[in-house]
Amino acid sequence: MTQPKVGIIMGSQSDWPTMKLAAEILDELGIAYEAKIVSAHRTPDRLWDYGKSAAARGLQVIIAGAGGAAHLPGMMASKTRIPVVGVPVQTRALSGVDSLYSIVQMPKGFPVATMAIGNAGAANAGLMAAGILALQDPELAERLDAWRETLSASIPDEPQDD
Amino acid sequence: MTQPKVGIIMGSQSDWPTMKLAAEILDELGIAYEAKIVSAHRTPDRLWDYGKSAAARGLQVIIAGAGGAAHLPGMMASKTRIPVVGVPVQTRALSGVDSLYSIVQMPKGFPVATMAIGNAGAANAGLMAAGILALQDPELAERLDAWRETLSASIPDEPQDD
Amino acid sequence: MTQPKVGIIMGSQSDWPTMKLAAEILDELGIAYEAKIVSAHRTPDRLWDYGKSAAARGLQVIIAGAGGAAHLPGMMASKTRIPVVGVPVQTRALSGVDSLYSIVQMPKGFPVATMAIGNAGAANAGLMAAGILALQDPELAERLDAWRETLSASIPDEPQDD
Amino acid sequence: MTQPKVGIIMGSQSDWPTMKLAAEILDELGIAYEAKIVSAHRTPDRLWDYGKSAAARGLQVIIAGAGGAAHLPGMMASKTRIPVVGVPVQTRALSGVDSLYSIVQMPKGFPVATMAIGNAGAANAGLMAAGILALQDPELAERLDAWRETLSASIPDEPQDD
Amino acid sequence: MTQPKVGIIMGSQSDWPTMKLAAEILDELGIAYEAKIVSAHRTPDRLWDYGKSAAARGLQVIIAGAGGAAHLPGMMASKTRIPVVGVPVQTRALSGVDSLYSIVQMPKGFPVATMAIGNAGAANAGLMAAGILALQDPELAERLDAWRETLSASIPDEPQDD
Amino acid sequence: MTQPKVGIIMGSQSDWPTMKLAAEILDELGIAYEAKIVSAHRTPDRLWDYGKSAAARGLQVIIAGAGGAAHLPGMMASKTRIPVVGVPVQTRALSGVDSLYSIVQMPKGFPVATMAIGNAGAANAGLMAAGILALQDPELAERLDAWRETLSASIPDEPQDD
Amino acid sequence: MTQPKVGIIMGSQSDWPTMKLAAEILDELGIAYEAKIVSAHRTPDRLWDYGKSAAARGLQVIIAGAGGAAHLPGMMASKTRIPVVGVPVQTRALSGVDSLYSIVQMPKGFPVATMAIGNAGAANAGLMAAGILALQDPELAERLDAWRETLSASIPDEPQDD
Amino acid sequence: MTQPKVGIIMGSQSDWPTMKLAAEILDELGIAYEAKIVSAHRTPDRLWDYGKSAAARGLQVIIAGAGGAAHLPGMMASKTRIPVVGVPVQTRALSGVDSLYSIVQMPKGFPVATMAIGNAGAANAGLMAAGILALQDPELAERLDAWRETLSASIPDEPQDD
Repeated sequence: MTQPKVGIIMGSQSDWPTMKLAAEILDELGIAYEAKIVSAHRTPDRLWDYGKSAAARGLQVIIAGAGGAAHLPGMMASKTRIPVVGVPVQTRALSGVDSLYSIVQMPKGFPVATMAIGNAGAANAGLMAAGILALQDPELAERLDAWRETLSASIPDEPQDD
Repeated sequence: MTQPKVGIIMGSQSDWPTMKLAAEILDELGIAYEAKIVSAHRTPDRLWDYGKSAAARGLQVIIAGAGGAAHLPGMMASKTRIPVVGVPVQTRALSGVDSLYSIVQMPKGFPVATMAIGNAGAANAGLMAAGILALQDPELAERLDAWRETLSASIPDEPQDD
Repeated sequence: MTQPKVGIIMGSQSDWPTMKLAAEILDELGIAYEAKIVSAHRTPDRLWDYGKSAAARGLQVIIAGAGGAAHLPGMMASKTRIPVVGVPVQTRALSGVDSLYSIVQMPKGFPVATMAIGNAGAANAGLMAAGILALQDPELAERLDAWRETLSASIPDEPQDD
Repeated sequence: MTQPKVGIIMGSQSDWPTMKLAAEILDELGIAYEAKIVSAHRTPDRLWDYGKSAAARGLQVIIAGAGGAAHLPGMMASKTRIPVVGVPVQTRALSGVDSLYSIVQMPKGFPVATMAIGNAGAANAGLMAAGILALQDPELAERLDAWRETLSASIPDEPQDD
Repeated sequence: MTQPKVGIIMGSQSDWPTMKLAAEILDELGIAYEAKIVSAHRTPDRLWDYGKSAAARGLQVIIAGAGGAAHLPGMMASKTRIPVVGVPVQTRALSGVDSLYSIVQMPKGFPVATMAIGNAGAANAGLMAAGILALQDPELAERLDAWRETLSASIPDEPQDD
Repeated sequence: MTQPKVGIIMGSQSDWPTMKLAAEILDELGIAYEAKIVSAHRTPDRLWDYGKSAAARGLQVIIAGAGGAAHLPGMMASKTRIPVVGVPVQTRALSGVDSLYSIVQMPKGFPVATMAIGNAGAANAGLMAAGILALQDPELAERLDAWRETLSASIPDEPQDD
Repeated sequence: MTQPKVGIIMGSQSDWPTMKLAAEILDELGIAYEAKIVSAHRTPDRLWDYGKSAAARGLQVIIAGAGGAAHLPGMMASKTRIPVVGVPVQTRALSGVDSLYSIVQMPKGFPVATMAIGNAGAANAGLMAAGILALQDPELAERLDAWRETLSASIPDEPQDD
Repeated sequence: MTQPKVGIIMGSQSDWPTMKLAAEILDELGIAYEAKIVSAHRTPDRLWDYGKSAAARGLQVIIAGAGGAAHLPGMMASKTRIPVVGVPVQTRALSGVDSLYSIVQMPKGFPVATMAIGNAGAANAGLMAAGILALQDPELAERLDAWRETLSASIPDEPQDD
């Protein structure tokens, strides 16, 4: 089995429909990853262990998704120097503004690379991980360029009625 | 030295001008407390140890203040069953709405007793701690009643021009 | 009949689908409670009487849920020194931000232990009440610890596709 | 001494710099009023008594100003059928949005005639009271018309540089 | 036909499902009213004429509902000294916060008695009109008191499961 | 005297420090304009007359600035087919979000070309007027192109310390 | 084929259900237009070319709709002096407030004539374009006046129950 | 001269007081960088050229700061696969919420690693760049670890009065 380079972690099973969009991008680009449930509040020791062992295990990027008082991305950023990409999951009452503020407003010292709220943000977390890994992997860089060109080429010239 | 019953913790020295209003209430009501800087991000292990030893050390309420992506109260609530009272510290760009959302929007399992943003919230954190402790301390209950009566009695009947 | 230790009050019948999540937690933890409709605006005298008699009746925590201009938790806090836990009920137009601000932004003197908007907040109100009562009830403390451990243990290691 | 027709009430002395703008309008229009500090939380019994005796005392409009979790206007509206005009006082962290939501989002049954946040709202509360009283007082109606005409006539045709 | 004392106006037919709740309250309390569509933008001359003739026609309160850039209540307040009660209609994108701000944030000189967003606000507009009219109509005052007592008496003591 | 092509109108003298930035742009580009105070609420008849005569007088663009419940731009748009450019003036409590929503959220039929809140918006209102007039005035188009090129050329390559 | 005078551009096919309301208005008023998909991020070179050739091709107004981090209208405004009308498309998490802020808050130099969020804004973009073109086209001015009169005449005097 | 690995770009000179905090972190960590003014709107061609040549020039991370309708980070992300870190600069009216939404809410395909609003965000942008570069530079990884340890060690145990 390939050593994963990206760890996708999320606070609960309910975040997976969002976070799997990150996994799909990594699949499309041929990047090995693992997906784990690591709750900042319910399994804080799991968070601790994950963060402390991440670099030694060969992870290079951690994608962390959470909703509400979304502490997972920021707490992970405090446990490892590896880049942490945060995905604010949309919430029922506050639509993910709570998730966004809890993830993006980190104090000096512990950056979280925050993405858009919800599905677009999860997909972009995969692409951000790819962009980081591509700095040391020319073949991945080519695949990423190709992915971007395909996206651009897929745009029709004119809108279509249904 | 009296064993503290309340622990006041905060993310950084810059939170103290707000959080000392909680300390002042505890002083007024004769409640033993300690005040510590415990940063969720900069000193996560200190947070871990504090939370894990809190009950055994005899703490009965933890007052936690933080600003921005304010993870301290919620993370502490994940480490101890002792009631955690959260104080959203006012911030520069978002006025403490970021702090409020990061503290109050906790998922099921880990409540944080959230107070108002800023100074009033810090003072009220002290009073909430007092109200909790008063459940087992009739003398404190009397002091708290007296404090409340003094507050009410201090309100003049009519507003005064300067 | 067991003397209730927790009073769950709410502004109207329409708050019950949210507030019963607090009741369910208290049931799970074996805590005696009562559930009442007490409207700050429609039955202010009921609010007055409830608040004034709460301590003498042996109540130790009051959980108050309300939506919109949610005055119930704060007004109850002005009538009793017993800890009041506030639950902002989600609303149609403003999603509960109105409820949250009306509950959390209390002035110095009258704290309300504010929970998250909606269902998670109601469940957490039950847990906060349990945490407060557990300070004087070692058996409840054990049950609460067990409840928390069960919650943590229920988290699978990896997310599952449907 | 003239029996006041309008009661101006406010939660604390700190609201007076705002609320006195209501008083000034009433002075300009020759309407008898009283100004009292009545705190929903610190002096709830005073609120109760004020509301219950308002109609019998001859008050016809109550202007109530408060900030933060601003419960005074709504609680007063629950105690009397006399029209209550609410003034959201500007606050430090949330600029009065908390005051506004706490005052305006009243449930069916207990309207509060909510004005703008801050000084303009307080002055307009005086004018709203005047408009209500003018329905039964033709001389006041004339004075109010004249006040409005003076305001309109005071607008220059072109803006002036300093 | 009875001379209407209250004019209910709204910006468009789409506001009627909300505004008819005001009409229903007036029906319940036996207050004569008329309901008209008067658009600030589409029929500004109708707004002008309505405002200028309102007092002479015997109207005593105008209830104005509008959504989005909701100019109708404020423009009506500029054309007549009669009390204008404003109802912010809920909107699709901004949930009525746009309506609320456009109605409540009036400048000094032209108060609008703003109600809650949506249905509760419309019903309360009817009650506010009733409270104003009751100042000169003891029988209406009694009906209004009875209506309020019926509302309070309708509140059950305990919540019911479905 | 040159017939003005642009009318700059504003709700009060206090809007002039913002709105004169529109005037300065028109001066720089050699476009004749007039500046008037026209209050939607205080001088509604002036608004009416201005709107009805605008086209006949040769005005081609109206720039309207207002703050709070900012009805001037939208009401002007209801009185004339000439393009109306709206400038949300910054306000004390709500920072101009109230102005923005009141101006931009116009219903179908009456567009207002809304600019940014405050000074940048006022300057851009002048440029938008210029862009509209330039469609029929090749010399103005050249001056506008030159203005834009000067702006771009003024940007240094690197930031400078003070 | 008639040379289009208005270019309707949008970031993606998913914006068309909103943006076609602009097209429908232009159809009703007999204004020639084209509709294109031009994505600021996916097809930036298409944006560049469109903007640079717009004036030479005879376009007189560009209507640009986009959602989220909506860069299309503002970037188009930086490439051409032709008036750009921006339509904030409603979004899932933030309801179009993100689109609105990204479009309206342009810096000095590059105005975008921002419309309301969603469908009303798209229709109004068509009307704003018509108002601009009507300055040089008396027949279009008449058609636009007639369209506005028809709209006003369509408003019934009283609301109808279903 | 050392080839810069990080490009710090910003929309205008006025962003430098914020963005230089990113530069200071890079200086502390011994990372070669360049700082340029590249305005999305005023110098779009400079943006184009910068983005297209970035990878070939050896840049590995681009830090882009902007305020208001902050298009620079997102537009840069559309021109290069290199990771773009976005810093929302605080603004006068909307405090940087406009900047934040314009930067973070990117559509699928073009991620921007968004940091906190203002100074903390700029410093963290430098740290995020360091974390990315450290993946291929063990010595930098050590320096970054040391920087983080120094930060943690600098936290006193207890808060100090002034």
